[in-house]
Amino acid sequence: METINRLKENVEIILPQNGLEEKLEQAKQENRKLIIKLGFDPTAPDLHLGHAVVLKKLKQFQDLGHQIVILVGSFTARIGDPTGKNKSRKPLSADNVQHNAETYLNQLSKIIDIEKAKIVFNSEWLDALSFSEVIQILSKVTVAQLMHRNDFNKRFTENSPIAMHELVYPILQGFDSVRIKADIEMGGTDQLFNCTMGRQLQETFELNPQIVMCMPLLKGLDGKEKMSKSLNNIIGLTDEPNEMFGKTMSIPDSLIEEFLDLTTDFSIEEKRSIREELSEGINPMHIKKRIAKNIITQYHSETEAQNAEAFFINQFQNKNFEQKSFRPVLINKIESVSGMMTLIDLCMKLKQGQTKSAMRRLIESGAVQINLEKVTDSSKNIELKADTKIKIGKRDFYELK
Amino acid sequence: METINRLKENVEIILPQNGLEEKLEQAKQENRKLIIKLGFDPTAPDLHLGHAVVLKKLKQFQDLGHQIVILVGSFTARIGDPTGKNKSRKPLSADNVQHNAETYLNQLSKIIDIEKAKIVFNSEWLDALSFSEVIQILSKVTVAQLMHRNDFNKRFTENSPIAMHELVYPILQGFDSVRIKADIEMGGTDQLFNCTMGRQLQETFELNPQIVMCMPLLKGLDGKEKMSKSLNNIIGLTDEPNEMFGKTMSIPDSLIEEFLDLTTDFSIEEKRSIREELSEGINPMHIKKRIAKNIITQYHSETEAQNAEAFFINQFQNKNFEQKSFRPVLINKIESVSGMMTLIDLCMKLKQGQTKSAMRRLIESGAVQINLEKVTDSSKNIELKADTKIKIGKRDFYELK
Repeated sequence: METINRLKENVEIILPQNGLEEKLEQAKQENRKLIIKLGFDPTAPDLHLGHAVVLKKLKQFQDLGHQIVILVGSFTARIGDPTGKNKSRKPLSADNVQHNAETYLNQLSKIIDIEKAKIVFNSEWLDALSFSEVIQILSKVTVAQLMHRNDFNKRFTENSPIAMHELVYPILQGFDSVRIKADIEMGGTDQLFNCTMGRQLQETFELNPQIVMCMPLLKGLDGKEKMSKSLNNIIGLTDEPNEMFGKTMSIPDSLIEEFLDLTTDFSIEEKRSIREELSEGINPMHIKKRIAKNIITQYHSETEAQNAEAFFINQFQNKNFEQKSFRPVLINKIESVSGMMTLIDLCMKLKQGQTKSAMRRLIESGAVQINLEKVTDSSKNIELKADTKIKIGKRDFYELK
Repeated sequence: METINRLKENVEIILPQNGLEEKLEQAKQENRKLIIKLGFDPTAPDLHLGHAVVLKKLKQFQDLGHQIVILVGSFTARIGDPTGKNKSRKPLSADNVQHNAETYLNQLSKIIDIEKAKIVFNSEWLDALSFSEVIQILSKVTVAQLMHRNDFNKRFTENSPIAMHELVYPILQGFDSVRIKADIEMGGTDQLFNCTMGRQLQETFELNPQIVMCMPLLKGLDGKEKMSKSLNNIIGLTDEPNEMFGKTMSIPDSLIEEFLDLTTDFSIEEKRSIREELSEGINPMHIKKRIAKNIITQYHSETEAQNAEAFFINQFQNKNFEQKSFRPVLINKIESVSGMMTLIDLCMKLKQGQTKSAMRRLIESGAVQINLEKVTDSSKNIELKADTKIKIGKRDFYELK
């Protein structure tokens, strides 16, 4: 019972509802491992905490002795976007696919035991299909079924074109489940439809249909969109500890509970007690720090988590302009006859190695402060006097002496 | 100009409108033959006058020296109906396909010069396609385009299932045009959509797109539905002369002009003069006879056409029960004590070699007449007296003596 509860924790959709219990019972009766499938597209191998939500669930199954199968979607990656419209989906060579897969598996090993997992490439069987076998497979599915997929339905209704091969892809994903005889297919909730295809195809091929387990989609640092590399709102599994800490601290408070559930490995009890603290009005920053340290401990180490916290406090949190973190700059080293200088010229003197236009953009974007106040006019004249504090960007603090 | 007019005669759709002129001009400039494609499905090899409408148009092109390509749809025939729902579309073996194709070509030779035509089987290239090549081809077409095909649209709207492979078939037909570099694809108007696919695919493969020429669909003997073997309303190209004659005579008057245009090889002038006769009130039967003889002359010979007419007049038209065509039957040879007999028993005596139940059905269907009057009650008592005339079915006439 405890096992089931832990396995079901955070899962957003299980299809059919009592499927997991049945599959586990089956495995026990037949004294075999369950085959748990996770597909991945070897085109964007940078894994982030969003991917980790699913991977950590896989790890739980792996820890119980079940067989994880990582399915590399090499067939479609090799084809790319045949319409050529999607520039980010260029056809990949076999070498590219292999390289991406290795990068991916390397990152995967931060969460699951990659030695015990089975890695398969679907081009192995899909490349070998004859056209008439393809026709046989396609005949198992109707157009209307495919049109139930949200994005297809929306595009069809809005008259925005759907190329025919796109309809074929979910069917392929389903056929992969037939080939590997998956018991469970895991994915984000955005994979529900495609995973359901697997159930249907397995049934038409007279196999016991897999169950589908969908994990929620973690939101990105912006607190709005799902975490996604293209939206630049991710915490990568291979991010440095300091970066992980800073990014976690930057999430909006509204995201704390989601991060608590989906990114940490606190026990259910610890999570409950943290929730209580939050409801009792603790400063959310303290909770974010605990979450950040927990994340870093998972992907790096506890020591690195401590160090990252110390670094963060020193660099970012001491925005009260504590003396120690400011770099002193002697005024008489700054060549100025009038004792005045435009903001941009001053910034160029202080922080070297930048182009003037980049510096201007930085100022105009509001990233420069004089004595705690943003100044966005790069041509503003600044009086060069002692104790003036200048902050440029997030990390550079200067004080005139 | 005369050539163009003759080539355009009876054509219901030419796409694009001025395409034929352009293709002919092109062929002339480049000093080459046009490639004219006709696809056929080697599952139902009984050709009828409906098919002949298209074939005779092909013959006109052949007579002008162009290259006819008969495309045998062996790929899809080999697959059959993969859903198994359509029992009439069982998968065919290579031998079946070959045999059907031969039967078909044999019938075709009644109209076109089969020696000069090129015969190709599309399984030759479709079997050889890899799955990833299939994906490339599918990507050229959108779902919405396919949904414009009338039957798909209707079924989709009515929620009646369309299996995914069905959407693929028109694309295959289009790809066939790419492979054989067709200049013109010919078909019935029901093939307009599929032929248009050929244009589109040729364009995406950077070929000069074929033009589409659709011939009208000839109505069947019932005058309502299109001529089709499954509706049992056909005149087959291999029907015997007498059968052709009888069937032609049986068409409703409303069909005369359509038959005149689409089944005869009268010149435009002859057709015009026949139309005039019709409008001047000639008995339509005379026109039907001329059409029937013209048809038989095309598929058999002029002599056989004459004989068929004579046979028809003798057997069917002399319904005035002229003496000569009745078989005399002596009453005292019919064993009956009472001098009476039920209709069914009498019929069994007269026309032997039938089962009683078949005879009962014949009577009940109205095919038996006593002295020019239908009798449908098989148990009716008939008085056996001299000069009683009995007609059983279409061809058996008896007179009691």
